[in-house]
Amino acid sequence: MERNVCLGIDIGGTNTAFGLVDARGKILLREYIPTRKEMGPQALFERIFNALENKVSQAAESFHIAGIGVGAPNGNYYNGTIEYPPNLGWENVDVVKLVKQFMDLPVRITNDANAAALGEMQFGSAKNFKHFIEITLGTGLGSGIVVDGKILYGADGAAGELGHTIVVPNGRLCNCGKKGCLETYCSAEGIRRTVFELMAEMNGHSPLRSIAFNDLTAKEIARLAEQGDAIALTAFDVTARILGRALADASAIFSPQAIILFGGLSQAGDLLLRPLKEYFEQHLMKHQKGKIRILISGLPESDAAILGAAALIWQEFD
Amino acid sequence: MERNVCLGIDIGGTNTAFGLVDARGKILLREYIPTRKEMGPQALFERIFNALENKVSQAAESFHIAGIGVGAPNGNYYNGTIEYPPNLGWENVDVVKLVKQFMDLPVRITNDANAAALGEMQFGSAKNFKHFIEITLGTGLGSGIVVDGKILYGADGAAGELGHTIVVPNGRLCNCGKKGCLETYCSAEGIRRTVFELMAEMNGHSPLRSIAFNDLTAKEIARLAEQGDAIALTAFDVTARILGRALADASAIFSPQAIILFGGLSQAGDLLLRPLKEYFEQHLMKHQKGKIRILISGLPESDAAILGAAALIWQEFD
Repeated sequence: MERNVCLGIDIGGTNTAFGLVDARGKILLREYIPTRKEMGPQALFERIFNALENKVSQAAESFHIAGIGVGAPNGNYYNGTIEYPPNLGWENVDVVKLVKQFMDLPVRITNDANAAALGEMQFGSAKNFKHFIEITLGTGLGSGIVVDGKILYGADGAAGELGHTIVVPNGRLCNCGKKGCLETYCSAEGIRRTVFELMAEMNGHSPLRSIAFNDLTAKEIARLAEQGDAIALTAFDVTARILGRALADASAIFSPQAIILFGGLSQAGDLLLRPLKEYFEQHLMKHQKGKIRILISGLPESDAAILGAAALIWQEFD
Repeated sequence: MERNVCLGIDIGGTNTAFGLVDARGKILLREYIPTRKEMGPQALFERIFNALENKVSQAAESFHIAGIGVGAPNGNYYNGTIEYPPNLGWENVDVVKLVKQFMDLPVRITNDANAAALGEMQFGSAKNFKHFIEITLGTGLGSGIVVDGKILYGADGAAGELGHTIVVPNGRLCNCGKKGCLETYCSAEGIRRTVFELMAEMNGHSPLRSIAFNDLTAKEIARLAEQGDAIALTAFDVTARILGRALADASAIFSPQAIILFGGLSQAGDLLLRPLKEYFEQHLMKHQKGKIRILISGLPESDAAILGAAALIWQEFD
């Protein structure tokens, strides 16, 4: 008997992951290959489908693939394209056309944060929500916003950029060219910048003072905060305060049931979560206080990207 | 022959307006009565339907009323209620139940800004848009957000409060209890506060220095700005800068086709609009620059509330 599955592909700057996912979110077969972005998208998809064929031919069971979901930076759901992704260095890529050379199946594409939100709704912490916001805390800050069970795409597929709303007027310079974007404060890179700002403002010994900017990781900041380092603890407090205010603003706009945190910084657990919930409640409008949950993602970090991409197809069967 | 119409009712703190509106947005019959909020909602609806019966019996033609739309502060679409409206002083009011005593027809209710957005889409400047944001610049700042042709209501009907997102951390105290809300800067009340802040910061003669806070209107500020008053001009610039930034942030979130300004301050024309468009473009993300229009409402100010309320019903026939 053939197993019904969807193929989920996640394209990253360094590695590409793909896998066959069943309706319950079980990954029956998975593979990771280097993206080798300099060889271009055609070569990447050739290698993906070759590797897939190999894997499938060796598998103990056979599969019926119902469709193909692709998560990629700057993935555009409406156009089926990847649009000038900065960290891949490609031009506009027609993903649907590329994929159809290999498999003539339904293809859907979206960006990483939207894929995470879909994965969350299909297989993770948002199974019971139709109104929620997925925040991905990685190097940057991404957001996938779900309104009435559907991803908010806007007029052109580019909606949902909470990370590029301004939280500090004339604040930190952002990669996007603007100043004071949420992402410059609340992300792995943001908390690193905060630590260096605090080292200038605060006094006192700290192991952080022996680490160069380029060598410091969010993980190390979390480790030191857990040991009681004042600068590291303050950095988490600053991050939580700005994120809490921004999420309260997003709640005034969307009135969601929940906000779900995914990735890197969210792994810091109570270090971030406890002050975050406090600042969030403080900044909510009166009628919303105590009503909106902040949750940690229910997706396993390593498989989330594949699950999210596959969810692009699975959601259509619901 | 009976004319097909919808009854639109707009309940305000002082006056209540209602009228019969045909499918093309023509108001065939209209009436304004004092709200007399202290007599309560039951008395108000009795007076509305009495006055309506009177008007209809005197009309030259006869009408078939397809449904009843109600716009009111804190109107909740999901619950069919008006929920503790601060400027009416009522408890929770079950509007659907109230109306059904008089006419057993479909009843829909929403708040003023959402009604304005619906009116705009049905009869005004947004006829060709499915993704836009209506900003009502009155005493406060309201917003009705349209996503894929539908009002954004969120999980509980209370979504769309752009006016209560924070644009200046620890800024001006807002009626909602928070600090630095958009509404405290960009509204008739906001620009008045800005003028008084500027009179402290700036030097030089101005007629504004002879007017007490309670006597100053946004209209007077506009009049003086047109005459070249430096404080009044700066006040419009400050208002435009903060609103432009906030609307750019909203665009990063929603990727709308247009933003439409309605009411009071938007009547100031180029005084507000010219700097607003500049600041807006400055703060947009690169890929959005030049693509999102800022328009003035196409609804006649005096009839907009009735049209918006009626649009609650008419949209369902589309």
